[in-house]
Amino acid sequence: MFPPVEKSNAPQKRREKLRRALGDLPALIPAGAPRGRNYAGNPYPFRASSHFIYFLGDLGAHLPRSWLLLDEDGDTLFTPAPSADDALWHGPTPSLAALSELGNVTTRDVAELDAVVRDRRIATLPAPDGATRMHQRQLLGRIPDVQKGDDLVLVDAVISLRLFHDDHAVAGLEQAAAATAAAHRAGMAATAPGRHEWHVRAAMEQALMARGMGTAYPSIVTVHGEVLHNNAYHHPLEAQDLLLADVGAETAGGWAGDVTRTWPVSGTFSPTQRDIYNVVLQAQKRTIEAIRPMVRYRDLHLKAAETLAAGLVNLGILLGDPAELVADDVHAMFFPHGVGHLIGLDVHDMEDLGDRAGYQKGRRRDARFGLSFLRLDRDLLPGMAVTIEPGFYNVPALLEDETRRAAVKDRVNWDKLAQFADVRGIRIEDDVLLEPGGPRVLTADIPKEIPDVEAAVNTGAP
Amino acid sequence: MFPPVEKSNAPQKRREKLRRALGDLPALIPAGAPRGRNYAGNPYPFRASSHFIYFLGDLGAHLPRSWLLLDEDGDTLFTPAPSADDALWHGPTPSLAALSELGNVTTRDVAELDAVVRDRRIATLPAPDGATRMHQRQLLGRIPDVQKGDDLVLVDAVISLRLFHDDHAVAGLEQAAAATAAAHRAGMAATAPGRHEWHVRAAMEQALMARGMGTAYPSIVTVHGEVLHNNAYHHPLEAQDLLLADVGAETAGGWAGDVTRTWPVSGTFSPTQRDIYNVVLQAQKRTIEAIRPMVRYRDLHLKAAETLAAGLVNLGILLGDPAELVADDVHAMFFPHGVGHLIGLDVHDMEDLGDRAGYQKGRRRDARFGLSFLRLDRDLLPGMAVTIEPGFYNVPALLEDETRRAAVKDRVNWDKLAQFADVRGIRIEDDVLLEPGGPRVLTADIPKEIPDVEAAVNTGAP
Repeated sequence: MFPPVEKSNAPQKRREKLRRALGDLPALIPAGAPRGRNYAGNPYPFRASSHFIYFLGDLGAHLPRSWLLLDEDGDTLFTPAPSADDALWHGPTPSLAALSELGNVTTRDVAELDAVVRDRRIATLPAPDGATRMHQRQLLGRIPDVQKGDDLVLVDAVISLRLFHDDHAVAGLEQAAAATAAAHRAGMAATAPGRHEWHVRAAMEQALMARGMGTAYPSIVTVHGEVLHNNAYHHPLEAQDLLLADVGAETAGGWAGDVTRTWPVSGTFSPTQRDIYNVVLQAQKRTIEAIRPMVRYRDLHLKAAETLAAGLVNLGILLGDPAELVADDVHAMFFPHGVGHLIGLDVHDMEDLGDRAGYQKGRRRDARFGLSFLRLDRDLLPGMAVTIEPGFYNVPALLEDETRRAAVKDRVNWDKLAQFADVRGIRIEDDVLLEPGGPRVLTADIPKEIPDVEAAVNTGAP
Repeated sequence: MFPPVEKSNAPQKRREKLRRALGDLPALIPAGAPRGRNYAGNPYPFRASSHFIYFLGDLGAHLPRSWLLLDEDGDTLFTPAPSADDALWHGPTPSLAALSELGNVTTRDVAELDAVVRDRRIATLPAPDGATRMHQRQLLGRIPDVQKGDDLVLVDAVISLRLFHDDHAVAGLEQAAAATAAAHRAGMAATAPGRHEWHVRAAMEQALMARGMGTAYPSIVTVHGEVLHNNAYHHPLEAQDLLLADVGAETAGGWAGDVTRTWPVSGTFSPTQRDIYNVVLQAQKRTIEAIRPMVRYRDLHLKAAETLAAGLVNLGILLGDPAELVADDVHAMFFPHGVGHLIGLDVHDMEDLGDRAGYQKGRRRDARFGLSFLRLDRDLLPGMAVTIEPGFYNVPALLEDETRRAAVKDRVNWDKLAQFADVRGIRIEDDVLLEPGGPRVLTADIPKEIPDVEAAVNTGAP
C-alpha cells in the first residue's frame, strides 16, 4: 500500500533553483526501478535515485519507474498510471491527480514520456539500475555522460544545490540521527559475551525497522574492526573483545545517518583499549571542534591524523614529531582511510557523480597513501553535512607487509605496539552539520565518552 | 570476512548428474554480481544465482563475480583472485587453492575465463543482474535464451535436478523452516494493540538476523491482508484487527522458508474471524493431507478451493454446490491466487526459468480467473517441496467491481458477507516436502490451531 507522505514545499523550491541554474536547458531525472534478487518477481526493497527524491520530496521514494521532467511546460512527473491489477496485489494506489496534488507537479502516464522527450535536447542523470539505463538510452537516443556537455551542466547544478541542506533536508538528517541513536543504544544493550555479532546487528536493525526505517548502508557489526568493510557477522563475542558497530538509519524519505561506536563486550575497557580509545576520541573531538566556515576538509583530515599521531607518540607506539609522522604517512599504517565524507540522501552523498561532488574545482585526489582514500576535499560552508570518523586499527595486512613495515620501521616501537594487541579496531564517527555559528553534531545523543559507553553496555548474562 | 562454510559432497554429486544429462555439452553458470543501491559502492546484500549455489554448495553464496564451468577439463570455478586491497577492506580471503579444497573444484582466476570460453559452444543460464548479463554476452558472443537450443537443454537438465531435493537440500529447507518458526513466534509475541505493523515485522526479522539469516522475500506483515503483496508497514494495530504475516527465512546457504500465519491483535479471534479462520484452516489441512506421489498440483488447488467454498456455503456466505461454485470461479472472488508453488533455493523455486519449472511438459497456464495465478501444475513426486497456502480475502477491488460482482451475484449472500467485515484477509501457509510415504510439513512447529495461536500472541500492554 502507498504509505502516508508528508507534503512539503521544499522540493518545489529546489526545482525552482535548479531551473535558474539550468536556464533553458530541460532536465530529465529518473527514479529507477526495483532490482531483481533471485528473479524479477522477488526484488530488493526499492530505493529511488536520490536526485529524484531530492526534487520530488519524500513522495519520490515510493515511485518506481517514474521520471521527473523540468522543461518549458513546467515540472512534470511521468509515472505508471495505476492498473486494475494494482488494486488486488498492491492495494489502493494514488491516482495521477492525487500524486499531482502531493508533489506540486503535473502528472502524466509514463507511457507518454517517449513522445514528449524524443529527439529533444535534454540534460539527464544516469539511472541507478540497468533496466532503467537501457530505457533512458532508448528515450534519449544517447548514453548519459556525467563528465561533459549538458549532463555535466546538470550535474554541477544538482551538486550546487544538494551540497547545502535546506530545512527539509536538515529535518531528514535529524530524523535519521535520532533513529541511529536508538539503534546504537539497542546494540550496546544487546551486547554480552557468548552472543554473536549477528545478535547485536539484529538488535540494532530492529530498532530502525520498528521505526519504519531501514539501514542507509550495509551494517558493520564486528569484533574484527580492523577489517574496514566487514559485512560478516558470524564471530562469537568474547569478553576481552571490542565490538565496532558502523550502523546508520535511512528514513522513509531517504535521508541517511552514519555513525560508528566501539564498545567493550564485557562492559569495561581494558587499560590498553582505554588508552587507544581516548586517543581516537580526542582526535575525533578536536577535528569536530575545528570545523568552521571555509575550513578545508583535507586539513580536517590531517588534523585528525596529527592528533592521532600525537596520541600514539604519547603512548610510546609512534616515535618522532607528529606533524612529520603524518607528512610521511606513518599514521596511515593505523588510520588508512579518510576522516569522512559528505552525508545527505546518500551515506556518501552524491558518490554516484564521482569526485565531482566531493572535490571542488581545481582539486583532485592525492596519490599519497595517507590521502588517497579521502572522499572529500572542499572548503566547508554552512549547510554542508559531513561525517568525522577517525580510527585506529591493527591491520595484519598492513603491519605484516614487508615494504610498508620497512618504510616506517624506525618510527614504530613494535614491542610497545604488541602490548596493544587487544585493540583490533576502534572507530568513532558522528554526523556533523556546519551551521553559520559552527559545527552541530547531529548524532551527539549516542554514548561516546568511556563512562557513558560502559554504562550503556549490557552486563547481564547472555 | 569470509564466513565459515560447511563442506558437503552434495554439490559434486549434483554436478555429476548434470554432466550425465548434458552429455558432451559444456555448461557455464554465472554467480552474478552485487547490485548497486544508491551507487555502486553501496550495494544491496549480495545474493548469488540459485543455480550457481546449487552446483557449488553453500560456498557459492559468498562468491560474487564468479562462474562455474563444466566441460571436458572438469569442474572449474572461475573467481576473482584475492587482491592486496581485499585484505585491508574485506579481511582474510580464501586463496584459490583453499576454494578449490572447499568446493571440490578446480579454481582459476576469473580473468582467464574469457580465453577459455571464447568462440566455444557452451550452454548457459541468464545471469541475475545487468552487469553480469553484459559480461556474459561478451564472453559468449550471444544472448542466453532459456526458450531454445543448448540453453534450453541446460534449463531442462537443471530443472530435472532441482525439482528433487537431496539430503543437503532438505537440511537447508529444515534450517530455513526452524528459523521461520522462530520469526513467527517472535511476531506473535510482539503483537499488541497500539503498536505498528513495522514493530512486528522488526521482531520477526530480528529473529532471523540473530540466527545469521535474512528473509527469502520481502516480508508481508499487515492488518490489510486483503492486499496480497503489501510491503508497507505503517498501519497501527487495532484491537479488532487480524494481522497477516507472510515471512520466511533464507539460510546463509540460500535455502528458503515461506510461511504465513494470521493472528488476532487482541489475542482473541472474534466469532466471525474464528469462523472464517476455521474454514481456511480446514482447506489448508485437507489440501496437505491430499498430497501424495503422482497427485496433480492443480487438483490440490481445486481441492483447496472446493473445501473453502464448502466452508463458505456452511457459513451462508456462498450459495450453491461447492464443486459448481469452483467450476464457475465464484470462490476466486475471495481466494484469487494459487494455492502455492515450488520452494527450494528460491521462494518460488526456479521462477527465473519461467513456467518451464512449474508446469510440466504439455501443460500451460489456464486463462480462467480461478487458475491463471497458479504457479505450479506438476504431478508431484517424492523429493519435491511445495507451499500450501489457501486464503480468504475481502478485496474491495474485486467485490466492488461491477462486472465481477454481477457474474456471481446470485451465488453470494451479500448481507451475510457484510457480517464478516472484520475479516480483511486470512492466509495460512506451510512448506511441505513430499516423502515416499506422504507429505511432511517442514513448518509444522508454528502455531496454527486457534488455541495455540491465541496463546502465542502477546496480551500485555504495548
